[in-house]
Amino acid sequence: MKSVIHEEFGDPATVLKCVETEDPALGASEARVEVLRTPINPSDLLQIAGQYGVRPDLPTIPGNEGVGRVTDANGTGLEDGQLVLLPAGSGTWVTEMVGDAGIFTPLPEADLDQLAMLAINPATAYLLIDDFVELAKGDWIIQSAANSAVGAYVIQLAHARGLKVACVVRRESAVAGLREMGADAVLVDSDTLPRDVAQATDTAPIRLALDAVAGDTMARLADTLAPGGTLVSYGAMSMAPAPLDAKTLIFSGITLKGFWLAQWFQQATADRRNQVYGELTALVASGKLNAPVDRHFALDDIAEAAAYTAAGERNGKVLLAPNGV
Amino acid sequence: MKSVIHEEFGDPATVLKCVETEDPALGASEARVEVLRTPINPSDLLQIAGQYGVRPDLPTIPGNEGVGRVTDANGTGLEDGQLVLLPAGSGTWVTEMVGDAGIFTPLPEADLDQLAMLAINPATAYLLIDDFVELAKGDWIIQSAANSAVGAYVIQLAHARGLKVACVVRRESAVAGLREMGADAVLVDSDTLPRDVAQATDTAPIRLALDAVAGDTMARLADTLAPGGTLVSYGAMSMAPAPLDAKTLIFSGITLKGFWLAQWFQQATADRRNQVYGELTALVASGKLNAPVDRHFALDDIAEAAAYTAAGERNGKVLLAPNGV
Repeated sequence: MKSVIHEEFGDPATVLKCVETEDPALGASEARVEVLRTPINPSDLLQIAGQYGVRPDLPTIPGNEGVGRVTDANGTGLEDGQLVLLPAGSGTWVTEMVGDAGIFTPLPEADLDQLAMLAINPATAYLLIDDFVELAKGDWIIQSAANSAVGAYVIQLAHARGLKVACVVRRESAVAGLREMGADAVLVDSDTLPRDVAQATDTAPIRLALDAVAGDTMARLADTLAPGGTLVSYGAMSMAPAPLDAKTLIFSGITLKGFWLAQWFQQATADRRNQVYGELTALVASGKLNAPVDRHFALDDIAEAAAYTAAGERNGKVLLAPNGV
Repeated sequence: MKSVIHEEFGDPATVLKCVETEDPALGASEARVEVLRTPINPSDLLQIAGQYGVRPDLPTIPGNEGVGRVTDANGTGLEDGQLVLLPAGSGTWVTEMVGDAGIFTPLPEADLDQLAMLAINPATAYLLIDDFVELAKGDWIIQSAANSAVGAYVIQLAHARGLKVACVVRRESAVAGLREMGADAVLVDSDTLPRDVAQATDTAPIRLALDAVAGDTMARLADTLAPGGTLVSYGAMSMAPAPLDAKTLIFSGITLKGFWLAQWFQQATADRRNQVYGELTALVASGKLNAPVDRHFALDDIAEAAAYTAAGERNGKVLLAPNGV
């Protein structure tokens, strides 16, 4: 089998390599799964760079989600050929996984790429909309990094609830795609963002802003909010500090919070997790929830794949296809 | 009578002037009060500069709190010679006020300076400690601008609840005074603040930070908080944006909020207002709650008084004494 590993933290394009090892033997109650698709998420690259909220012991195998197919059910409850969700955060950038059958969640047959992206980005979008501000039909929300996978899910989930979404992007070339996706307003980030948003939304009060860019964008998003509004930060693509004006907090009563899915997993009840993932699995399997895919890479090309993902000029998610497309 | 007025927004030392006008006549149910002490708060200077959350119509008389003595009760329920609290936000930088007797709140005889500062800073300190984070005896909190009047009240009110206070100041010369005041740790702000605080508090978890400086100080205070902690911004003395790291929000689950007393007044119930001010009046009148006073100015010297207050090298509050000290 092949695995992507890194032995030190640093630039993913430099520290990642693909190594070949013996196939692990199957223990009792364990099943063998070939990995079909596993995404490269921006947060994976942060983890490899050592800039994430937790640092694994090294060497480590990256990859936090994906789908596979059972190749040896080994008398467990699973069946050979069953499509399964890989366990979250389990080191999924490999050609195959062996583990207790209970860690693999059976999935209905559907688009492999979309199912592979189920565990992290759709849940992030769902909880960003659900867990911070009480919203009613017709309300506007605003998001930066709108042409990301989370951005696409936010638009789809918000529309399913009758919300309107103002989408902020960093380059003009991303505008058309978002309009096609049904974004209710699309704005290119600039100094005049708060004024542009007011104009595009007919000065509708916005009580929820979702930011994954940090830097100036985050500070400007805070300035687009109505008094009492909340900005939730869930990413820092620009890696720049946000020059926040204290007067926005004081006089407009804006609240700033962060969201980290790993933290949510630790705090959410099993009922809540099952409810969120049950709903999302049905939506993704039925095709109602989906994000654009840019391209696939083989495990052997991981350095190129990481550099390509980090460059940020993609039009969708980059996935690894460890056993071919 | 004399009043301080300004006809345009701008540098307080330039736009403020003291003018003489006819004494207003007394209407039925109105009383006349001579103003004894009225503070110059940093927020007054922001208002005059036009950088505050609300802008009054011009020309206007600044001054938001103070104490006076009834000189003509005019058959109302008040008595001649009664010490009274001036109504909040009523334009108190005057030698005398005339108004419906009901707007003046009778006070016990006590230190005039301390009573004059009752309405704004002690209430701010009280609500900053009370309204954001559930705290238990022995817990640490941290505050910047610790040598301000609010800072002094925070120390006193926190100690009354068994809390410990880490105090951050911008200059070494302010350290000794805070130690005398009983601050549990005093730190001079610098790049190493989070590490310095951890050392001074024996790495105790800090769940509440109070900031009135903004800029780098606010960003550093956020970094001193324990996971899940809250920073409340209530001032922006440095007038600089705070370079906030999104990772602090995301991975440490820090919440940032603002506090504005004027907003609290609009939202608080009458019961809550009476409870807060009843408690504070008793504490100030008994001397248990007090803030240092630097010096007094006459209304005629308002330009000098404003410049002196803004310079920030004071050792306490500056007050106007419109009828002499």
